[in-house]
Amino acid sequence: MDVLIAGFGVVGQGITEAIRDKQELFVKRFGERVRIVGAFDARSLALDPSGLDPDELLQRKQSTSRVGKGEAPDDVEKLLQETAYDLLLEVTPTNIVDGGLGYKHIRTALAAGRHVATSNKGPLALRFRELTELAARNRVHLRYEASVGGAMPVINLSRELLMGEDIISLRGILNGTCNFILHRMKEEGLSFDFALREAQELGYAETDPTYDIDGVDSACKLAILANAIFDRDVTYSDVVRTGIRGITEEAITLAAEQKKVIRLIGEVSRDKLEVAPRLVPAGHPLSIGGTLNIAQMLTDLAGDITVVGRGAGRKETASALLSDLLAILKDEEARREAKCRSMT
Amino acid sequence: MDVLIAGFGVVGQGITEAIRDKQELFVKRFGERVRIVGAFDARSLALDPSGLDPDELLQRKQSTSRVGKGEAPDDVEKLLQETAYDLLLEVTPTNIVDGGLGYKHIRTALAAGRHVATSNKGPLALRFRELTELAARNRVHLRYEASVGGAMPVINLSRELLMGEDIISLRGILNGTCNFILHRMKEEGLSFDFALREAQELGYAETDPTYDIDGVDSACKLAILANAIFDRDVTYSDVVRTGIRGITEEAITLAAEQKKVIRLIGEVSRDKLEVAPRLVPAGHPLSIGGTLNIAQMLTDLAGDITVVGRGAGRKETASALLSDLLAILKDEEARREAKCRSMT
Repeated sequence: MDVLIAGFGVVGQGITEAIRDKQELFVKRFGERVRIVGAFDARSLALDPSGLDPDELLQRKQSTSRVGKGEAPDDVEKLLQETAYDLLLEVTPTNIVDGGLGYKHIRTALAAGRHVATSNKGPLALRFRELTELAARNRVHLRYEASVGGAMPVINLSRELLMGEDIISLRGILNGTCNFILHRMKEEGLSFDFALREAQELGYAETDPTYDIDGVDSACKLAILANAIFDRDVTYSDVVRTGIRGITEEAITLAAEQKKVIRLIGEVSRDKLEVAPRLVPAGHPLSIGGTLNIAQMLTDLAGDITVVGRGAGRKETASALLSDLLAILKDEEARREAKCRSMT
Repeated sequence: MDVLIAGFGVVGQGITEAIRDKQELFVKRFGERVRIVGAFDARSLALDPSGLDPDELLQRKQSTSRVGKGEAPDDVEKLLQETAYDLLLEVTPTNIVDGGLGYKHIRTALAAGRHVATSNKGPLALRFRELTELAARNRVHLRYEASVGGAMPVINLSRELLMGEDIISLRGILNGTCNFILHRMKEEGLSFDFALREAQELGYAETDPTYDIDGVDSACKLAILANAIFDRDVTYSDVVRTGIRGITEEAITLAAEQKKVIRLIGEVSRDKLEVAPRLVPAGHPLSIGGTLNIAQMLTDLAGDITVVGRGAGRKETASALLSDLLAILKDEEARREAKCRSMT
């Protein structure tokens, strides 16, 4: 399988490392290597139909801030249409205004009959139906486990392993930064501002923390889950949204007196779509601390199924992209096997 | 798809209900119905190549304790070889001495080229390699999500969604009865004997609780996980095993003073295979209370992935069997689709 990588930031570098390190698995399990035949970032392009050296890409990026020796492509659309590759790994920075470049890349690759796996929330939180329908029409995969909850496999779990369940609702903690802040406020009696500064110093929160603490990031992920799991047709602006800016030390203390904690919970069902701070009883799975992500699904047969994982990080997000890449390899293998058998 | 059900106790009845209730899903997703063409218990047999009525089977079982009007088959081996069906649902009572009838049923069906999905721990905890190799040789599926942790999808999660991960270790609570007892001892200051009696009165523990409280049930499940996820070749007697009989109120109190709880933890890695009571920090995912099951896997890329679900119950175990049935349908569909396309 030949892959093209769009974007070479933390996630692009992480998946490059994973592809480098998992060749033995690809060969052992599927009898083929996975080659990186192209990679580009905002300023450069690397292309080689016979396969690029992952270490060379990683080293060049680190020393020159460019993934390729060549100039950035003038016409990315043409590049995505005319280069030979099987799978686009779309890992450019997200844009939640109109989906940005990520949207264009994904659309072009799908229309050109290429599979896509992405960590890019924007296009999926804004134009989910359009993109999934385009993939279906072209009989290719569009997979996006990495767009929600990092290494937490909530999408593939609910869509594949829980395929037989009627999933009635999902509640989850989808932003590790908010959870870290709320956890520290409670444990150490910190003010919101102090806990936020701590999160910024530790690298969990951006200098402009709006995207996290106002619940925008959680709302994007919740919209994707609503579309993917509940077959809804929503964008992130449909999410009723309250962030955690207004949470005071007093509110945390009052909750503690009732043996409860405050958590920023996203909830989706057929008729609900909301991100808001909620009181959660201590000891409940959703009372989890730290920067973890968690999702709890209520289903008709299995009851509650809960999954917990690391919500962000270079290796963790790469792990989710890798699981999508492997699912595509597995599906291709099943089709190939059947084809061989029908011809003999 | 035509299924044959071996065993018609709680689990057999649960999967019959699930098959009855999910026909719309089968048709919508795979374009075909799932028919029950046969079912037998220790005393009777029902057979109809054109499909049995699930409600009739359930009602007959409830009113007469027999699933079929016919006598139990004299020669089950011949029945499993000569009846036309695609999938055996093996849900007879487990036998952990030699695998018992379940082992014979599974072996016969696989050798006859039929898929098998089972909730039966004994055969898998004793003869895992033999059975999985037999399935591979005959190019059929042997699936057993329901044999470990009820509705908790730990096997399919780790084998399928985490296919790309190196799973370094797994720790879990695999027996809800023990967890209920330990939880109640801590919360209410009960003695072990008192909490056990409570569990028995609530129907969580058997009259002879040995199988649960001495860790035999957990050890069987851990052996299956060792074979399925860590590619080991062990039986349940290879598990180093300590139960919870010796846990005193004093031990629980002492743990609480250190903000810890005692849990019966199964742990498996390449060189470890042990069920034993362990101290777990309060707030850690493995400190979970009640009758839930939980498994936490440490992986190379994703870090810790944790899954929680109901460990037992009619609907819950049926849910796991249903997920295996659907995975088989999905695989058959991929093979069929490719075949069609290669012919056009």
